[in-house]
Amino acid sequence: MTAAQLDVVAVGNAIVDIIAPAPDSLIVEEGLTKGGMQLVDAARADALYARMGSAHEASGGSAANTIAGMAALGRKCGFIGQVADDQFGKIFSHDIRAIGVDFTTPMRGNEPPTAQCLIFVTPDGQRTMNTFLGASQFLPAAALDRAMIENAAVLYLEGYLWDPEEPRAAMREAIAIARAAGRKVAFTLSDNFVIDRHGDDFRALLRDGKIDILFANDGEIRTLMQTDDFEAAVAAAAPLVETLVVTRSEQGALAMSGGQRFDVAAEPIAKVVDTTGAGDLFAAGFLAGQAEGRSIAESLTMGAICAAEVISHYGPRPEADLKALVASRLG
Amino acid sequence: MTAAQLDVVAVGNAIVDIIAPAPDSLIVEEGLTKGGMQLVDAARADALYARMGSAHEASGGSAANTIAGMAALGRKCGFIGQVADDQFGKIFSHDIRAIGVDFTTPMRGNEPPTAQCLIFVTPDGQRTMNTFLGASQFLPAAALDRAMIENAAVLYLEGYLWDPEEPRAAMREAIAIARAAGRKVAFTLSDNFVIDRHGDDFRALLRDGKIDILFANDGEIRTLMQTDDFEAAVAAAAPLVETLVVTRSEQGALAMSGGQRFDVAAEPIAKVVDTTGAGDLFAAGFLAGQAEGRSIAESLTMGAICAAEVISHYGPRPEADLKALVASRLG
Repeated sequence: MTAAQLDVVAVGNAIVDIIAPAPDSLIVEEGLTKGGMQLVDAARADALYARMGSAHEASGGSAANTIAGMAALGRKCGFIGQVADDQFGKIFSHDIRAIGVDFTTPMRGNEPPTAQCLIFVTPDGQRTMNTFLGASQFLPAAALDRAMIENAAVLYLEGYLWDPEEPRAAMREAIAIARAAGRKVAFTLSDNFVIDRHGDDFRALLRDGKIDILFANDGEIRTLMQTDDFEAAVAAAAPLVETLVVTRSEQGALAMSGGQRFDVAAEPIAKVVDTTGAGDLFAAGFLAGQAEGRSIAESLTMGAICAAEVISHYGPRPEADLKALVASRLG
Repeated sequence: MTAAQLDVVAVGNAIVDIIAPAPDSLIVEEGLTKGGMQLVDAARADALYARMGSAHEASGGSAANTIAGMAALGRKCGFIGQVADDQFGKIFSHDIRAIGVDFTTPMRGNEPPTAQCLIFVTPDGQRTMNTFLGASQFLPAAALDRAMIENAAVLYLEGYLWDPEEPRAAMREAIAIARAAGRKVAFTLSDNFVIDRHGDDFRALLRDGKIDILFANDGEIRTLMQTDDFEAAVAAAAPLVETLVVTRSEQGALAMSGGQRFDVAAEPIAKVVDTTGAGDLFAAGFLAGQAEGRSIAESLTMGAICAAEVISHYGPRPEADLKALVASRLG
């Protein structure tokens, strides 16, 4: 096994977010699950867009946001995901390359278009996401950059991408490539409804020792371990992985690693503007901390710092100087 | 002359802005004129985009921003401008309709694409704009919504759109329609370089009594009146129009109307983040004040309030509740 040239390579949805404030009444009227992500077809996306206020657009995608956060922290990363050959595909490709991330996945034709996520941000800062997967659902295993995966210390996979068939097969292949190269595999559960649909697959991956680092939030770890009891869920999941990281919004986060438990408080912030990207940026901070050789406890603090930054403004990717923020807290 | 159903209808570029922070060194290296707007072709736009950092996108366009500000202030407005049938065209159309503006100009095919403006925002908050006009330069006179122009109290025209030939002809036609219907015509000079190219046209319009309300900034009024002396420029321009409004950045603004002069200070703000849209939103506040029947002095104050809001955040359109801001200052 040669030394890794990249810290992390992620496989995830390549999405452009369309973000606008929305009243709670709209979430109710449209029958959306507040705080959740639902997949929508083109017609439903059009109908929801018609109800949306004036918006702004920015590159998103859960794993891509994590990689963007790591790049902002100075780590060397790669990203694998499918865009179409259209204006949104150009935006996504530009933004991820502009921050120094290796992104080599070839564009696909222009139908279906690049994935779009309509994000309604309610006055409490909570985001409700409606994803039209478009080109993203057609990431083929053949598009995987094998050398990039073999040369990254960690392969990071996004649970959201387990829904469509082709990327699911591609992610299974990516896991095989990474493990054969002696690399670690990290996985984020993404969403309760994704676990409802694919929990059996995820539990099998864990049981078979395919996952080294598991990211979840409070609800997701309970759904995955099929218990309402948070502590029981954590206790059941922890032995299945080398490191388990569970985020709990304003209650902070915890990690279980080597039989030990580590807790971190949430970073104080003035106002929650938009929670989009909170979990993604927590993962970025934690993985960057680990790549820097920091302790689990310090890596958790880095996660909390990065999550606090991204929820203090609109948009899913960091705007402030994350490196400076971390240096001012941890040196 | 029947009562107007709209307060203002604007003819302007239909643009999606691509906005990113940039160091001053980039402005120098690329030979850009800081604070100005330059027209670029597709190849130059690609080259500049390649140098840009991770960006975000939002609907822009000078006159469209003004109309968006007026809509936020509760005025009824229309917009006329050309988009292509592509993702950016969809964004522009959605955003302007989502704020209640009448926008009926039919989309054009998908080549050239919808206009895009690459905006580099330097650490001092100044914006430097590079516009690829795309579909916007092909607004034909035939696409003018005559009834909309006849039914609007004020026709508002954007100087930037004087560059391309078809929209220039369309704007001359729009002036004729408005004047025949007994409506007022407002014009914003937009940019010094635009005046360099079309100053003779603009001076002829003024001399022929085609313009009732003229918006300019400090540099533009001097360029237009061909003198370095600001007071001399104002004195020479004022008799040519019913109302002259001149903005002076942090030095506030003034209006000349009915032989009287009115001055207003700039509104204090904590930090200038991004000056994109400052002049556009000043015009929005002023025109909305006039539509409400306020005095010239109060209309200037409304302009200053709106300009201060838009330069306190990234992006060319208001984010805060402009109506509430005005009410808290003027009642």
